[in-house]
Amino acid sequence: MAEPKENVLMEKIVSLCKRRGFVFQSSEIYGGINGFWDYGPLGAELKRNVKELWWNSMTRLRDDVVGLEATIIMAPQIWKASGHVETFADMMRECPMTRKRVRTDQVEPQSGSVVKFTGAVSNPKPEVHDDYLTTIETSASSFSNAANNREAINNCVKSVVSVKHSGASDLDERVEEETGIFWANHCTHASTEFSILLPAGKPVESAKKSAISFYQSLGVENPVLLGGVTEKVEDSTDFHPESGVKLGPSRPFNLMLQTYVGPIQSEENIAYLRPETAQAIFAQFKNVHETSRQKVPFGIAQVGKAFRNEVTPRNFTFRSREFEQMELEFFIKPDEAVEAIHGNVAVPTAPGHPGEPQPNWGWQMWHQYWVEERVRFYEGIGLSRATLGFHIQTPEELAHYARATTDILFKFPFSKVDEQGEVKGDELEGVAARSDFDLSQHERHSGKAMGVFDEDLRTAWGKLAPEKQKELRQRYYEARKKYLTKTAREGDSPEKIEKEAQEDADGLAKGQYIPHVIEPSAGVDRLILALLANAFTETTSTDEKGKSEVRTVMKFHPRVAPVKVGVFPLLKNKPELVAKAKEVFQLLRGHMLAFYDETGAIGRRYARQDEAGTPFGVTIDFDTLGEKPELLNTVTVRHRDDGAQERIPISELPGWLLARVK
Amino acid sequence: MAEPKENVLMEKIVSLCKRRGFVFQSSEIYGGINGFWDYGPLGAELKRNVKELWWNSMTRLRDDVVGLEATIIMAPQIWKASGHVETFADMMRECPMTRKRVRTDQVEPQSGSVVKFTGAVSNPKPEVHDDYLTTIETSASSFSNAANNREAINNCVKSVVSVKHSGASDLDERVEEETGIFWANHCTHASTEFSILLPAGKPVESAKKSAISFYQSLGVENPVLLGGVTEKVEDSTDFHPESGVKLGPSRPFNLMLQTYVGPIQSEENIAYLRPETAQAIFAQFKNVHETSRQKVPFGIAQVGKAFRNEVTPRNFTFRSREFEQMELEFFIKPDEAVEAIHGNVAVPTAPGHPGEPQPNWGWQMWHQYWVEERVRFYEGIGLSRATLGFHIQTPEELAHYARATTDILFKFPFSKVDEQGEVKGDELEGVAARSDFDLSQHERHSGKAMGVFDEDLRTAWGKLAPEKQKELRQRYYEARKKYLTKTAREGDSPEKIEKEAQEDADGLAKGQYIPHVIEPSAGVDRLILALLANAFTETTSTDEKGKSEVRTVMKFHPRVAPVKVGVFPLLKNKPELVAKAKEVFQLLRGHMLAFYDETGAIGRRYARQDEAGTPFGVTIDFDTLGEKPELLNTVTVRHRDDGAQERIPISELPGWLLARVK
Repeated sequence: MAEPKENVLMEKIVSLCKRRGFVFQSSEIYGGINGFWDYGPLGAELKRNVKELWWNSMTRLRDDVVGLEATIIMAPQIWKASGHVETFADMMRECPMTRKRVRTDQVEPQSGSVVKFTGAVSNPKPEVHDDYLTTIETSASSFSNAANNREAINNCVKSVVSVKHSGASDLDERVEEETGIFWANHCTHASTEFSILLPAGKPVESAKKSAISFYQSLGVENPVLLGGVTEKVEDSTDFHPESGVKLGPSRPFNLMLQTYVGPIQSEENIAYLRPETAQAIFAQFKNVHETSRQKVPFGIAQVGKAFRNEVTPRNFTFRSREFEQMELEFFIKPDEAVEAIHGNVAVPTAPGHPGEPQPNWGWQMWHQYWVEERVRFYEGIGLSRATLGFHIQTPEELAHYARATTDILFKFPFSKVDEQGEVKGDELEGVAARSDFDLSQHERHSGKAMGVFDEDLRTAWGKLAPEKQKELRQRYYEARKKYLTKTAREGDSPEKIEKEAQEDADGLAKGQYIPHVIEPSAGVDRLILALLANAFTETTSTDEKGKSEVRTVMKFHPRVAPVKVGVFPLLKNKPELVAKAKEVFQLLRGHMLAFYDETGAIGRRYARQDEAGTPFGVTIDFDTLGEKPELLNTVTVRHRDDGAQERIPISELPGWLLARVK
Repeated sequence: MAEPKENVLMEKIVSLCKRRGFVFQSSEIYGGINGFWDYGPLGAELKRNVKELWWNSMTRLRDDVVGLEATIIMAPQIWKASGHVETFADMMRECPMTRKRVRTDQVEPQSGSVVKFTGAVSNPKPEVHDDYLTTIETSASSFSNAANNREAINNCVKSVVSVKHSGASDLDERVEEETGIFWANHCTHASTEFSILLPAGKPVESAKKSAISFYQSLGVENPVLLGGVTEKVEDSTDFHPESGVKLGPSRPFNLMLQTYVGPIQSEENIAYLRPETAQAIFAQFKNVHETSRQKVPFGIAQVGKAFRNEVTPRNFTFRSREFEQMELEFFIKPDEAVEAIHGNVAVPTAPGHPGEPQPNWGWQMWHQYWVEERVRFYEGIGLSRATLGFHIQTPEELAHYARATTDILFKFPFSKVDEQGEVKGDELEGVAARSDFDLSQHERHSGKAMGVFDEDLRTAWGKLAPEKQKELRQRYYEARKKYLTKTAREGDSPEKIEKEAQEDADGLAKGQYIPHVIEPSAGVDRLILALLANAFTETTSTDEKGKSEVRTVMKFHPRVAPVKVGVFPLLKNKPELVAKAKEVFQLLRGHMLAFYDETGAIGRRYARQDEAGTPFGVTIDFDTLGEKPELLNTVTVRHRDDGAQERIPISELPGWLLARVK
């Protein structure tokens, strides 16, 4: 059970983040807002570096990927086509009293006494009694005393009815019937069950009080409670953690934040804050394809904010309501097209990176390729393979349109230990093979063709043996039919689906298809948190007087470190040192983020930069000025991680540093 | 009247943006969403470059500015403190029929015939007549024929009343009274005016139809219209441009997009999408100040999305509903503190850039400094001073807390020509001197101290002559009192304000104050549009056959150009040329965004890159391979803007290009 230790570590990280300006709680001076986090000066630089590295490696340094920057608010039809309006939901249960919701799978088990009410009826108002009493011709005075007692009213009604119908053979039935009519006409009632877990030591009265206010909220005036039996429960997940009230049934709760765009708050003006950046890429696929001179296989990359109304944001910035994504949608030919053109489809034969993309790769090769590309990216910014984990989604976990998804995990301090005592990690990124689902959905919902024409395929198809043509056509037809059937909408008859699938298969022979897609989708904030956790190191140093001090060193990879180099004159009160240090600082800052510091002892300044994660420290001392002539115009470069120092000429400094921080 | 020409130019720019992938309409395949625009591959790079240049020049290359990256959704209290919940509104008028709103100042004048109704009454239902007729004891048959005619009913009532009260001296009054009682009891009516402008050629019937459906919507069943007079109007701005219905009164309409965060859609969970990035900086001022080791004067910079529910988004990306801002809040000492420390306050004496910041600068110097710094920034990315304009806000235009605001304008193709025949331009950026209003507001609303302690001030204050202390204290006191009075809330009595202002003034003597702020606030999307408009150039070239062609050249400054260099083998079918060209491409792409193109004639490839705005083209020809030995390993570099070519050794190419694109 490593939990307590892990929490201590998370607390230390959170505390450092606030102390050094990496991450602040959003709106902190107003008590914060749950699930929202701001990046302070160091955090903002760290995040910029990560996004810039992703963008460079995913688009600028690739021939086959271009960028996109789409809006957060898009036409709501996009989220209908994507399925988000209907199915992007958590299963939730609501407390019927406070209306507060909890995620069904996140209710902590509770034990104790439960008081269960079966319903409530309102006591009738005096004027109603009068009315009724006149009707049943009995004395008003004897009845009104009983006004607050249902039992008494029932008896009264019964006795009157007995008199009216005395001797009738169906007397009991008549009594029951007329009593029922009385209550139906003159009282409100609710037969909704209300159960509440009694906190230890609380009297049953408190449960009654809650029940009364609950039934009042249902419109039962002056309610008389029915039921009220107490029973024991053990480890039940049926009760709200705060109110103790028995939860309603599990229902889907949409996670998209909703707003209205335009001057009227009407149904037609509903818009959503995107819950992912991916859909914008699909919606703009044709525009990008037509303007970028790219041919399938190629990708479109985007970095941007997304929003999810998470019910229980947690684990610091790991699960927040506003977050940033870095997503690539990489469009590939369907395997049938690859086989038509190249005669075969290459499939993975060994684990690891499959090397440079080849034209005969099928979707499985591309999927493996992107998983491994992404792992290389993480390794390149300091997350070694040992800190990562993988989760290959099981058929049950996969979305219905997905063919495979591999989650790349990082072993966070809060990641759980499994039965084997191992930490598997939590998701940094998912790499999904999404078939042609997304573009197909947008084609059907928008009525705009999303397919591409592939000259190579058309040419190759003509040269195929008829047998091969038939086989490939059949496979493509089956796949399309399966998609069309699974996503059938009202009015999509089997005949219509059959016809469309046949048309799609005919298109293939003409060089037309809807591209398939591999989606490496990463969360920026999670990655930042992983980098913070990975960098966090405590060292204990003991000074000459034997006094030991625990210091924090943030061992960021130089590529992501917010500040690349600290520049320090050895002493503040020596103008020559200060002037030279400022000269070096000016020389470096054009190339990278540099920080000049002259305040305090040099050790103190090193320590401050260690805590900020600055990988290199440059000190200008008297040797720099030529005290030892052979060291003139050289500086001491100190390495953050081991404190090692080396002497480097100022003229070589920019190149030396750039080679290490780029 | 240059309008038609200008619109043609805007159309060309919009068309190029779509054709070349600079800007697409958001959600285009679904018919778009008004006021939202996506950036395609070239646009995304252009925007990234601009944001990166701003960030570098505003934070990384300055000692006195640090960055922040805050969330779009923040605690709603922030927008109460900032005044946005109450006053961030456009004056709007609503069509009472369609509920569609228009901005009061943007209704186009219309002329024509107006049909004016004064109200409507419902024809009573038959059972009501029966009821009434029974009551007034007259024959039911004679009355029901008149059921559809108010006049007839009135007469009928009158005659009955006459009979009942025949000979009474107050007969007329009684008739009127009983008639009134009849209508009040048995009919619904509406006395709301409804006027509608008749489109030319439309019959009055159409106006009646609209009026009937309008009064029905007010709950008048089966309405009989009252009034119906037709009159002429000239150039009236009182009618809705679409429905023609007379608009309701001008009312404020809040421009913030609203959503709910958390599991319940209740008042307490309302949140807003930020309408500006500035407030996050104020809300995090203390956190940043405490963690960044900065002292006033210093600034906090942020780039990020903001949202405004503009009623009429227009001028392409100029006024959109989702946009991006680059904002700096630069915090300075109040003038009283500057004077206490330095003995005087420097004020502007000449136009232009005042040079390096000095410790004795007052707010006016800082304001001038930031206006000029920002102009330098624009000049540095290709917007010459001649393309810019300035608008110094008049006292009437200034926000009540602002001391001065200078808007930096750009002469867009849609910018209006003024009476003097000059184009003034539209706002790119506002540089505002906002006093200590923002931090003061957050201090009062959050209850958290937002002031700073200034050691220099405390030390200096002790050495001031008592007369000087008194004078400065008095000035500071007056300013604080003015702020506290203007923003007084319920319960802020004059005594309380007096006391607080005195305390604030006492604080100054102890080295405490709330910093003032200068805010250069720029719109990214507007700047991108300015860069596109500024770069857009058409050239007509005539080939040997005398055929002339109009070509577009996007003359972006190399710093912002999406692609920095195109690399072309002279011929595609010469493997040596292709191999060498790919080698050069690999050499360059590590340093800058490069584009390799081997398809089509070299002139065609140049033209494509001219249209994308690529400033340099590198061609690998046979001389590169050594056909002329003295030119071995040199390439032709072509300049986009004038087509000039020069020969440069490959080894010098990266440095040569970097010096021009950085």
